Parts: sequence; C-alpha cells; structure tokens
Amino acid sequence: MRDFLPADKARRERVLTIIRDRYRAHGFDEIETPVLEEYARLHAGIGGDNEKLAYNVLRRGLDADAVRAGADDPAALADLGLRYDLTVPLARFYASNRGHLPTVFRSIQIAPVWRAERPQKGRYRQFVQCDIDIIGDSSPRAEAELAVATLDTLDALGLDGGSIRINDRRVLDWMLDSFGFGPDERPGVLITIDKLDKLGPDGVIAELRERAATASAVEAFAAFLLRPQTREYLPFGAEQIRRALPDNAPDEIVDHLVGIGAAVAAARGESDIPLVFDPFLVRGMGYYTGTIFELAHPSVEYSLGGGGRYDGMIGRFLGQDVPAVGFSIGFERIVDLVSGDADTDAPAVVLVHDRDVPVAELLAHKATLVAGGSRVRLEQRTKNLKALLERAASDGYTAFATVSSGAAPESLEIKPLG
Amino acid sequence: MRDFLPADKARRERVLTIIRDRYRAHGFDEIETPVLEEYARLHAGIGGDNEKLAYNVLRRGLDADAVRAGADDPAALADLGLRYDLTVPLARFYASNRGHLPTVFRSIQIAPVWRAERPQKGRYRQFVQCDIDIIGDSSPRAEAELAVATLDTLDALGLDGGSIRINDRRVLDWMLDSFGFGPDERPGVLITIDKLDKLGPDGVIAELRERAATASAVEAFAAFLLRPQTREYLPFGAEQIRRALPDNAPDEIVDHLVGIGAAVAAARGESDIPLVFDPFLVRGMGYYTGTIFELAHPSVEYSLGGGGRYDGMIGRFLGQDVPAVGFSIGFERIVDLVSGDADTDAPAVVLVHDRDVPVAELLAHKATLVAGGSRVRLEQRTKNLKALLERAASDGYTAFATVSSGAAPESLEIKPLG
Repeated sequence: MRDFLPADKARRERVLTIIRDRYRAHGFDEIETPVLEEYARLHAGIGGDNEKLAYNVLRRGLDADAVRAGADDPAALADLGLRYDLTVPLARFYASNRGHLPTVFRSIQIAPVWRAERPQKGRYRQFVQCDIDIIGDSSPRAEAELAVATLDTLDALGLDGGSIRINDRRVLDWMLDSFGFGPDERPGVLITIDKLDKLGPDGVIAELRERAATASAVEAFAAFLLRPQTREYLPFGAEQIRRALPDNAPDEIVDHLVGIGAAVAAARGESDIPLVFDPFLVRGMGYYTGTIFELAHPSVEYSLGGGGRYDGMIGRFLGQDVPAVGFSIGFERIVDLVSGDADTDAPAVVLVHDRDVPVAELLAHKATLVAGGSRVRLEQRTKNLKALLERAASDGYTAFATVSSGAAPESLEIKPLG
Repeated sequence: MRDFLPADKARRERVLTIIRDRYRAHGFDEIETPVLEEYARLHAGIGGDNEKLAYNVLRRGLDADAVRAGADDPAALADLGLRYDLTVPLARFYASNRGHLPTVFRSIQIAPVWRAERPQKGRYRQFVQCDIDIIGDSSPRAEAELAVATLDTLDALGLDGGSIRINDRRVLDWMLDSFGFGPDERPGVLITIDKLDKLGPDGVIAELRERAATASAVEAFAAFLLRPQTREYLPFGAEQIRRALPDNAPDEIVDHLVGIGAAVAAARGESDIPLVFDPFLVRGMGYYTGTIFELAHPSVEYSLGGGGRYDGMIGRFLGQDVPAVGFSIGFERIVDLVSGDADTDAPAVVLVHDRDVPVAELLAHKATLVAGGSRVRLEQRTKNLKALLERAASDGYTAFATVSSGAAPESLEIKPLG
C-alpha cells in the first residue's frame, strides 16, 4: 500500500477526471458503494480466488471468550470485509436499489479495492479500478457501448491505438464439448488453457495430458490448436471468426460477436475494427457467461483492463436473472502510461516574502492573486532562493514574485519561473 | 454505511471538485495515504475516543490455535485497521516522506474515514473528510491561510456568510490554572466545559461540583462564567478578546489570535472580521496544543467543520517536533446544504430508438453526438414514452431525439426535454 506525494496524486486525479468525464459522456452514471461489505457476501463463492485475498474486519465488542469460541469459524470473528472487486458490490447495489434505477442501467464505479496479495512489482494491496457496467441489456448493444466508451477513454488519455481481444465463454464451452471434454473437467481445462500466453501451445497440451483429461479430447484439442494460423488474431468478421473455430460454430454466438464488431466500427468510423477475436481467451473469473474482453495497447505487452458478461450474478442477490456486462480499466496500469504534464490551465504563483512582512499584508497579496484565478503559494525567503524556486517549479508552479513590507498589491512584479 | 445513487453521487463529486479546486488555489497540494494503517499506530493513544471506534482488520493466515492463543490480545488478532481520521495518517505520512516535501508543507486530504459508531441521524460509519493542514509553520500565517481557504471554499459552494469560532488551548489552560484547578483535574474539567452548548452554564457548574473538582476553583470559574456578556461572541480584536477573559491574559496568546484575525480580515477585504472568539470552545481531541477552530454558518446550528494546532503530534512519529495546524470541513454536513443543481455545462441527450434499429446505426448516432460534446444515453422506446423522458430528465438529461432505422445522423431532430 502506497502513499501518494503531491505530483503523483495530482496526476492520478487528472487521469481519473478524464476517465470519469468520458464515461459520463457515453451515458454512464456514477454510483458509490461502501468500502466495507458483509463478510458472508464477500465469501459466497462468487468472487473466485479473490475471496481468499479479502481483508476481513474483526467484529466489534468480541470478548476473549467469544474469540476462543469462534476460533474455528471465520464468520464468528469477522462480520465485514473490504471489497476485493467492484462487481460483487454492484450486483448487491443493483438488487438493493433497482426501483430507483432506469430499466437499462449504465453504471460507473471509480474506487479502490483491496487484496492481500504478496507484494510484487506492479501489484498493490490497495488499487483503483474504473468499472463501467450495463445491467438489463442482453443485446450486443451493451458490449458495443462498453467497448466504444473504453476505447474513447483510452484516446482521451492520449493512448490512441488501443484494441480489444474478445471471445465468448459459450465459444469455449462449445469447443470443449465438441472436442469431447466432459462437463466436469471443463473448469480445470479452462484453467490450463488460460496459461496459453505463458506456457505456449506445447506447454498447454502437456499440462492437459498431465491432468489426465479425456485423452481423445486432449488430442482433438491439440490437433486444432497446432493447426496453422489459429493463434493469429484475425481481422474481425463473421468469416474470420468461423475460420478461427472448429466447423459449425453456433450462429447465435458468432452473430453476437459480429454484431458487437459492426457497432464498434460504426461508432469509431474506422475501417479497421479495433477488435481481435481470440478463441482461447479465458479470463479467470468463474462468473462470466458470455462475451469476455481484454484491453490491449501496442505500447505494453500486458492487458490494461478487461471484463465480460455475467448474466447469472445479479440473480444471486435479486432472485431474478438480469443480464449484465462490464468492462474495467486497470487504473494503476493506465496511470503510468499517461503523460505526466502538470495542469497548465491556471497560473501558479509563488510569493517569496521577507520575514518581516506582516501576515496581514501577505494574506492580502495572496487573496488578490487567488481572486484573479491563480494558484498561490507563500514561501519565506531562504538563503538559497534558487533552490526554493526550483522546488516550486517541480511542484507545478509557473511564476513567482517577491514581496516586501508595505508593497501595494498592484506593484507586485510577477515573473515566469525557470 | 450508504449506497449513493447517480444523482447523489454526481452532487457529491461536484462539491468535492469545488472544494479541491479552492484548496489548490490557496496553495495546498493533495496527497493520499492508504485506507489501512497499522493497528499499533491507530491505537497509540493519539486518536482519543476515536481509537475505540476503529474497525480492525483480522490478520491473514491465522489458524484456530493462533486465534485461541491471541484471544486476550487484540494486537495478536489484528495487524491493520481502517483510519478513523486523516490527522494520524498525515503525521505518519509526513514523517515517512519529509525529504520530498517543501519546508512549509500545505496538504489537502479528501478521503473517507470509518468509525464504528452507533447509527444515528447525521452520523455515518463511512464518511468523507476534507482536511487542509500546514506543517512547519508556527506563526499565525498558518492559521490565517487555513481560515481564508476554508471561508473562500464555503463562498464558492454558495454558502456565503460563514464564520469561525476560535479559541486557543493555551487560553483554556491559563484560565483553568488562574481559577485554581490543578493540572491533573484539567482534562476532566475540559470535558465538562465542552458540554456548555448542551448543558448551559448552570448545568456545567453543577457537573463540575459533582466531579468534586477543587471547590474554590469551581466557584471562581462559576463567578466568571455567570458574569454578564461572557457568552456573547464579541467583535474580534485585542480589546474584545481581553474583555472576554479574566484579567491579565498572556500577551503571547492574545497577539497570536489578533494576528490571525488581522490577516483574515486583510485577505477577505471585509470590515467585519469573520472570526468570533469563544473562550469556552474546547473541541474534543486531546492532541490540540494551541489555536482551535469551529466553522459556523447562519443556516445551521451545528458546526460544519473544525480543527486546530497540534504541535506535538508529528514528533511522535518523527522524533523531532514540527509545528502543525489543520482545518477539516465536514463534507457530509456541507453536501446537504449545497444546491442540488445538475451540471448544465454540457448538453445531455437521450436517444430514443425503435427496437428494430440496428445496433451499428445506434452507436454511430451516439458517437456523433458524443464527439460533438454531448452526454448521450440510449433508450429503447417503451409504451410510456412520457415516463421514460421524465425519468431521463430527473437523471439530468436536457434534450432528446427519436431514432428510426436508416436515419442519417444529420437528420436527428434534438428537442429540449420537459
């Protein structure tokens, strides 16, 4: 977990403002849920591996006897926990507040989540996610609106050229079924296929053999995976999608994907559709039921975000199925790619004053400049004026003036810094 | 703990943007610290009563034996906790990052804190505080900058007419000493005096008698408290401050208060200094060492924020005393007073479409309007168009257009809503 110094914090807020603004322009509305959710909800089996990484909050008022009595039962010790994602809280929010929301609800959530991960480069225990979700729309319109809003946001951040890897969980289910994997072994097989980027095709096939998955199915999968061109991301269209799949892929799924691509292309006005179909894209979360996405950018090898359709989850809270699909930008990954230019919208002035200038005069000078639209910092003159001004420049200040006792506000001579 | 629906969330973000912008204009720089702090730091005796209200986080990886062994020791069960204020984390932040900060560091923290309070009207378990602090300046300039920035922020929120009740802990110490209360009984006496608004003078005197405080001191205090005019908030100046106090108040303290008032008046350009001296203002936190403030506004009876000087706290973390003073706006109290007008800066258009309009056409219409600067929501036409449009208007949309299949983007007729 990290402290953010002023320059970092200012950059983070600037990036968040752009993301929020773009999401809002695309018709999404921001909501907020509490950081703490009920322990039982966070450990209901929806959050996958993240459940194990939750920070749990000790019940208040437990005495030593109650602690000893509950030693074998985490739920006796903890009644709340810090959210590990924004999707489980959204599903709970929607179930609680449905009557106040439009039929098709497009939400923005920009907020931190917590996971008790082992510290490693690029992974933090508190990190910000920027999620948009559409609840109540099962058509490809929903996926297309998410993809367009996300790509537009990337553009607004100066990260043009983004693209989206896309697949459908139903494609994976259908493929595994057609190869001959039984329903029970599919979750394990998917975990192995999810390592394709890391292990390569041969590694995946070897691991499937080790898993003792149905041998004929493994060989059918291997033959398909190792045929030429399958791992190439093809131009996005019905014909290309069918060519990337075993024969006779279901129309319903292919049409849904093609519908998304056509709508994204129409919105972007680009001849190259910024979607790449990847029939082996899995994504870890077990709750996905349809389309799955990952956000890619040519400047980095890792994904900058992702999401998918999770039509079953709202029903867990509401008792009635409602279609839902979401796309999350990994803020911590994005923020480091965005140019660090400071605001240049308002002049920022350092007023360097002698020790003997009365406080009332200083504050009057400052107030005059603030009222005129400047950002103003007071600094008492030090021996090393150069160092003082360099420090201020590195904090984003662009001008300075020196203040002596008795000077009239209009007599201040404001000079550019550096 | 509360969910925030879109209209509420939008209002909260608008208010936070104004507060952040004003604080920044006054030369403060925003920082961020992690939500979770170490348990030991949160329970070091600095946080006063708030320490008891902390949410503590269960250590990860404890087995049942470890839980039983630690049943009598909260620190064995919890290693982290949610911050209950922003002052303790700031002191820790400053001690950790001092080398990267200017000599006089003016910080902004806008962030939630958590207290396990009994739910009651106007009190929440998660709530946002907006703190500004100045570290490294012992002069009245610091208090004046905080007061001016806070009053300017109130003005920018449309809450003109705010004022600040002010006192100095050293005034209280000196008064209690001059009445004859011993050093040991002063903390208890202050707790009682802090109830003056609630109990009235007679109630406070009765409680002091019950406390068995030094009888002669209680009578001296009573005589002073009950003399005419003492409870009136007087115009702010040296003479008035002295008249509100027992004779021979120390020059050093009076001069510091007068210096703050003169500087605030100079900055505000007002003939009426928006400070009111209240020699019985206490404020709960034990860490205050000098000036204490409370923010008042004529529209409400309760305080909208407060703060004070805590010159001893940084030393607890740094091992070297550094002067510090802070002012916190109670965001949850402010946000309800601010007018709820939605943004009117960008047109917001609802596109009502028939079911048969292809998704690609819809997204193209939407993209054209978004690119032109609008916020755009797609809505499939329902039987009750009027209800749909009213709903959109209540969500802040200001215009609508209907979309039929095959319509050219330039043919959309955008009409005002409502």
